[in-house]
Amino acid sequence: MKMHDLIRELKEPGDSKIVLLVADGLGGLPMEPGGKTELESARTPNLDALAREGTCGLSIPVLPGITPGSGPGHLGLFGYDPLEHRIGRGILEALGINVEVGPRDVAARGNFCTVDDSGLITDRRAGRPATERCVAMCRKLQEIKVPGVELIVEPVREHRFVAVFRGDNLGDAVNDTDPQQTGHRPLEARGEDPASQNTAAAVNRFVAEAARVLKNDAPTNMVTLRGFARYPKIETMQEVYGVRPVAIAVYPMYRGLARLVGMTVADAGATLADQMETLRKLWGQYDFFFLHYKYTDSTGEDGNFAAKVEMIERLDTEIPKVRALDPDVIVVTGDHSTPSKLRSHSWHPVPTLLWSKRCRPDPVTEFGESYCLRGGLGQFPAMYLLPQALANAGRLGKYGA
Amino acid sequence: MKMHDLIRELKEPGDSKIVLLVADGLGGLPMEPGGKTELESARTPNLDALAREGTCGLSIPVLPGITPGSGPGHLGLFGYDPLEHRIGRGILEALGINVEVGPRDVAARGNFCTVDDSGLITDRRAGRPATERCVAMCRKLQEIKVPGVELIVEPVREHRFVAVFRGDNLGDAVNDTDPQQTGHRPLEARGEDPASQNTAAAVNRFVAEAARVLKNDAPTNMVTLRGFARYPKIETMQEVYGVRPVAIAVYPMYRGLARLVGMTVADAGATLADQMETLRKLWGQYDFFFLHYKYTDSTGEDGNFAAKVEMIERLDTEIPKVRALDPDVIVVTGDHSTPSKLRSHSWHPVPTLLWSKRCRPDPVTEFGESYCLRGGLGQFPAMYLLPQALANAGRLGKYGA
Repeated sequence: MKMHDLIRELKEPGDSKIVLLVADGLGGLPMEPGGKTELESARTPNLDALAREGTCGLSIPVLPGITPGSGPGHLGLFGYDPLEHRIGRGILEALGINVEVGPRDVAARGNFCTVDDSGLITDRRAGRPATERCVAMCRKLQEIKVPGVELIVEPVREHRFVAVFRGDNLGDAVNDTDPQQTGHRPLEARGEDPASQNTAAAVNRFVAEAARVLKNDAPTNMVTLRGFARYPKIETMQEVYGVRPVAIAVYPMYRGLARLVGMTVADAGATLADQMETLRKLWGQYDFFFLHYKYTDSTGEDGNFAAKVEMIERLDTEIPKVRALDPDVIVVTGDHSTPSKLRSHSWHPVPTLLWSKRCRPDPVTEFGESYCLRGGLGQFPAMYLLPQALANAGRLGKYGA
Repeated sequence: MKMHDLIRELKEPGDSKIVLLVADGLGGLPMEPGGKTELESARTPNLDALAREGTCGLSIPVLPGITPGSGPGHLGLFGYDPLEHRIGRGILEALGINVEVGPRDVAARGNFCTVDDSGLITDRRAGRPATERCVAMCRKLQEIKVPGVELIVEPVREHRFVAVFRGDNLGDAVNDTDPQQTGHRPLEARGEDPASQNTAAAVNRFVAEAARVLKNDAPTNMVTLRGFARYPKIETMQEVYGVRPVAIAVYPMYRGLARLVGMTVADAGATLADQMETLRKLWGQYDFFFLHYKYTDSTGEDGNFAAKVEMIERLDTEIPKVRALDPDVIVVTGDHSTPSKLRSHSWHPVPTLLWSKRCRPDPVTEFGESYCLRGGLGQFPAMYLLPQALANAGRLGKYGA
């Protein structure tokens, strides 16, 4: 029996409120042997108080040793098995630029490229054009009509764009049209099954039209498409957990990931203070609040230890605003680690705290990787965090008599 | 490969003896921030000695965040995956009142209710009659003959009874006949498959006869049935582990759960001292001894912290009688937590100790929730406790060469 089937059966209605605060890439590493991590170095009196009153541990996003992207990292925190639910490249790219994809959509990543007079690719990235040019070219592509399919073309940046094919009975078992080397023509799209053949036909028509409308726009005179992906079928948090969830996230990808699991996506503003103000305004309307904080990840990706410490301290100063709302459960964690030392996502377990009035105390009095090692949550798969939040919120009944 | 298939393959014969002492609802919570749990508050020199000499940890009965009933809680401790083996409501109710159900049985929970002259339910619980009346009414129902089926009707208390339909080819995919509201007739039973249609036919015949024999017994002049459940098919502990198990439990439900997995059920007496005397008498005849101690749960359910502490201390004083028998392995744990603070079963992990001469030492010197956090068993699914007991008893061979 799967965890979601069990929770669906045990979920109980209620008015209790859960806040899930995700500090992206929260976990870190010391820069030097014997040093502290970013989180351990930061002065975090408010997070420490939550850790002292609550229970701590280390969450394993996917499996030990597996470094997750943002998609699987967040799915785990939302209580979905990230190995069961996969979000295809095209869909993730669409979510990342705020394209509202849905169940009738197949999305792909597009590249502008350069072809010579005989149609052979001479530059797979069209000389990395300025993003303004990308925007203008996408506007041209958006005019293309493909019978039976609604087409959405949106710029990403430089040579990159997203193409969404919206219609009935479209599959995503379609090959990339990018031949991955110069001196070749773009490949013809072929579908592996009837629904994917529908998609392939639409793709080939789109590409032929693109060649026509772009023919005088060298070096951006052709396109390739890859990473075809359908919008995943995924049960919503409402269905499985019986909560009314809302996402308060600034960046499109996290807003999109939240929408994928059925969250309402709020107008979050641009800063953490805006997000807190949104949280306060929406407090009465929802019972599950996903707050996403990006800068712990981006500073880690930059390899800027001091900046990551500062971003953690900035987050800490906003915690009293959450507590002032008197939530039943507060969870603070990350979707993965992003150690400044590695300048990238990593596989290291993620410091996690769960605060409620029903927690069993543990010896942890500060929030940090090494302290969390002694915490009551132990080391656990991230997907088990959400059922524990529900239990602490009094929202799960007893299994069996 | 499932754990049971592996153990079946690796099990080795032997004369070593294992004692599994289950203190029901053992785990707890402090009443106040910074306080101790019931177990941590209790003076337990004998349990502490076992903890010091053995290995400790925290067992997770089902999954993190999931609060188990007694059924799944015990199945886990017996080494059965509680998500794979489900014990239906009717069977559990029958076990709870000492009805000896078996593989040919479908059991249901029954309610006496009140119907008016036109057969509409006016009180779903018949005004909660005295238990003596329930007993008398059940005696009447027991006289009913249903062709092809042996019928057993036993009182529970007040308006509640258990009905068992014993026969060949009876299924349990049968709807509840209780319409869950007044002003309606009891629902007709319908079976979802041929075997369940056999059951439904017997149920409808039984209910029609009940209406006839009870017609002058208002307010207990009708019955409804719900929670139809077959006796689960479950491999026995003898088959899987190669042990000769005996249950020394006072309360019927735990005796029934033990019978379900193939244990012999001993005449345990009424007190813990009686149980210890039974253990001593049966020591030569069996090699796996399940002792069940109820009062750590019932005091927790009462919200009586001091009484739970006292019940734990009383249990502790009996431990020397177990050690005097020189067992190879002693396990002390609970089937779930029942914090006095919550007055109910909970999801919190359960303090567990495993003592044998082959344990690897850990730093735990007292038996209690926070000490167990540092224990050598870690936090682990309860179903993995039994294989560790077998291993420490020298009863499991090597897997692979």
